[in-house]
Amino acid sequence: MFKKILIANRGEIAVRIIRACRELGIKTVAVYSEADREALHTQLADEAVCIGPAAASESYLNMERILSATISTGADAIHPGFGFLSENSRFVEMCSKCNITFIGPSAEIINKMGNKSEARKTMIEAGVPVVPGTKDPVFQAEEGKTIADGMGYPVIIKASSGGGGKGMRIVTASEEFIGCFNTAQRESVNAFGDNTMYIEKYIVSPRHIEFQILADKYGNVIQLGERDCSIQRRHQKLIEESPSSAITPELRKQMGDTAVKAAKAATYENAGTIEFLLDKNGDFYFIEMNTRIQVEHPVTEMVTGLDLIKEQIRIAEGQKLTIKQEDVLIRGHAIECRINAENPARNFMPSPGTVTNMHLPGGNGVRIDTALYNGYKIPAHYDSMIVKVIVHDVDRISAINKMRSTLGEVVIEGITTNIDFQYEILSNEAFQAGDVNTHFIQEFFE
Amino acid sequence: MFKKILIANRGEIAVRIIRACRELGIKTVAVYSEADREALHTQLADEAVCIGPAAASESYLNMERILSATISTGADAIHPGFGFLSENSRFVEMCSKCNITFIGPSAEIINKMGNKSEARKTMIEAGVPVVPGTKDPVFQAEEGKTIADGMGYPVIIKASSGGGGKGMRIVTASEEFIGCFNTAQRESVNAFGDNTMYIEKYIVSPRHIEFQILADKYGNVIQLGERDCSIQRRHQKLIEESPSSAITPELRKQMGDTAVKAAKAATYENAGTIEFLLDKNGDFYFIEMNTRIQVEHPVTEMVTGLDLIKEQIRIAEGQKLTIKQEDVLIRGHAIECRINAENPARNFMPSPGTVTNMHLPGGNGVRIDTALYNGYKIPAHYDSMIVKVIVHDVDRISAINKMRSTLGEVVIEGITTNIDFQYEILSNEAFQAGDVNTHFIQEFFE
Repeated sequence: MFKKILIANRGEIAVRIIRACRELGIKTVAVYSEADREALHTQLADEAVCIGPAAASESYLNMERILSATISTGADAIHPGFGFLSENSRFVEMCSKCNITFIGPSAEIINKMGNKSEARKTMIEAGVPVVPGTKDPVFQAEEGKTIADGMGYPVIIKASSGGGGKGMRIVTASEEFIGCFNTAQRESVNAFGDNTMYIEKYIVSPRHIEFQILADKYGNVIQLGERDCSIQRRHQKLIEESPSSAITPELRKQMGDTAVKAAKAATYENAGTIEFLLDKNGDFYFIEMNTRIQVEHPVTEMVTGLDLIKEQIRIAEGQKLTIKQEDVLIRGHAIECRINAENPARNFMPSPGTVTNMHLPGGNGVRIDTALYNGYKIPAHYDSMIVKVIVHDVDRISAINKMRSTLGEVVIEGITTNIDFQYEILSNEAFQAGDVNTHFIQEFFE
Repeated sequence: MFKKILIANRGEIAVRIIRACRELGIKTVAVYSEADREALHTQLADEAVCIGPAAASESYLNMERILSATISTGADAIHPGFGFLSENSRFVEMCSKCNITFIGPSAEIINKMGNKSEARKTMIEAGVPVVPGTKDPVFQAEEGKTIADGMGYPVIIKASSGGGGKGMRIVTASEEFIGCFNTAQRESVNAFGDNTMYIEKYIVSPRHIEFQILADKYGNVIQLGERDCSIQRRHQKLIEESPSSAITPELRKQMGDTAVKAAKAATYENAGTIEFLLDKNGDFYFIEMNTRIQVEHPVTEMVTGLDLIKEQIRIAEGQKLTIKQEDVLIRGHAIECRINAENPARNFMPSPGTVTNMHLPGGNGVRIDTALYNGYKIPAHYDSMIVKVIVHDVDRISAINKMRSTLGEVVIEGITTNIDFQYEILSNEAFQAGDVNTHFIQEFFE
């Protein structure tokens, strides 16, 4: 059993992990940058070590300093939270060399799942559906057309070196293929000097559905139901829910079983997430595996009654899973809204500053995860997500109403937040009807 | 369906009710005394009406002013919360005459259950066990001894006019009875000029176990499990839990069935509580029925996933219960600590004043019900209970650890509270072992 854990993170997730450790009777070490001297995680931990200047590269991403803080405080293990070093396999190896337990999967698994094409290969071999696409690069339009005709339209043509939409074309019919391919390839050559192209099936208006996985060191793997994270803005999740209103009990079982199969194929260990795209026909495709705890983990905790951080710690300690798949019971409906210090009216520009007055609501089925406090100065150096509001109620519409009521009570003065924007989404008829996909924000609000 | 509800209360329970109404899309009217102009419930409601001076008798207990506020704002119904007018049958009758729905049982039921001897009679007739005792007064020691010998010892002799322990004796053996009776009767005559005595079975070191009841207008009654409220100081509950660590699943079923029988015998309607004393042999005795929502209702909400205030409103609207007994599932363990503005070091003297700095924790399984905010001035006129901290975890010891960790994070400056006292109880070995009864505080802390 761990006696002391160092938390290699900051903000609400660091506070979240400190609380789990306190409840387990494990001592905690916070690390903090010079900008986080007054941060809540720095204040709450049993010990706190300054690891460098504000810039993350010099503090929260500085592996040597974090390891040195771990050794000097005598901590047994490091919890990386999410972001920063949480999916850095080199860091995991360094922990191992220092005889420090990294609370997460092994470096090998992180590498395997972090490499998109290798993850895809693993899943194909395991019989997990992936978005259909070319394995080898395509250089000729005619060759591409034959492949695309075989896949069925729409398809998406992607430049291997692409980015920012350059060298990318969606093709909806066979007769448009040749023209689109040539245009995309020309764009790629002009922009990146590279004519290497790929073709993938284009999933129309998909939903983002992910399954929470727990896996111990002994090959036991369970899934804790899904999270629907279709409400995204530029690939940043804004609202997450569990369960998803889009899937039937049968599909839930099928996707859940597939998620467990995927985790087993990856010989996964600790908490992880299998992400799928779900199309309108109920077909789903593996897109990636996240090998860490996720921002949206609380919605799963609210519906299952479990504590995922504690489970992560127990698994890393070498304990067997105490929960069997048949004991996992999803109760009610949970929604999380990410509150960011940003200004929607100015293209969601970050809005750090001092919280001059704050009042956060509570009550039945309301959970707030935050590292804010009255008078806290939000540093400009880090992620703008400052509060997670999570609600739980008997069904989806009750949870939506509870979230609207709860957001209506939140007072955060001194900075600009996206609370009103979130309120608008929650009040949208299509959202309330569950008629959403990953393009929802773009279609309705931009 | 109600369109607007007036909340005839203040503090955290008023806030709690306002939130439930908001979530149901029902408008709210707050009433407030002159001392509560800046109170949170006054600020949160859609409308707020001042009903008089600080003294409760001139505001929160002033029936005419509350009814006049209800009529002038066009509210359909009144939620009384707990305390104040919540068990006042005359107020319920006045509501009825004004064609306003009182969210609670009828005046008749409140009267029947409020009168201890009538409630006792109802329960005896229904076959619900009550603390054995004399129905008729006893004047002669010898007559009393015969009755007591029949009951078995220990018994308690009580003066009919008694109070403050005067004219009261616990008798542990037959041979002591005559002497004790004569002493108690002499005390009663001297103190109250009355020689009328009663004899009851004395329940040694009982636990206080109560069952939450929901009953609709159509005779459907369910129970939502028990709350163990054995941690009391001078009959004021301090810590409440659900489930109780003292009862087996078989006893739970038996007591739950009895609670439903008791509620049916009372022809009960709306939310209510059946209170029992449980002795060390597993025998239990009805003591009283509370015909209102209780302070400790959140622990039941945490383990059942239900919202009792919303259920109260639905029942008062004439809706049928949507939950069947077999659908009630108790998950995990919940504990509530009542945080009072009082000074344990000065005999728990109330300590009102201004909250100069406040920081309340949150996170997984933590619920805070309060009407406090930064800068709020707690008036001296009302109950000293200012915050309810409720936690939920997988089992009792995890919940205790979570509560300790959570209380450790609470910051309330400017006033004195009983938080450290609560922390001490939670850290006590006997408490942690579940080895408690209603004398626990007295035995361990006074």
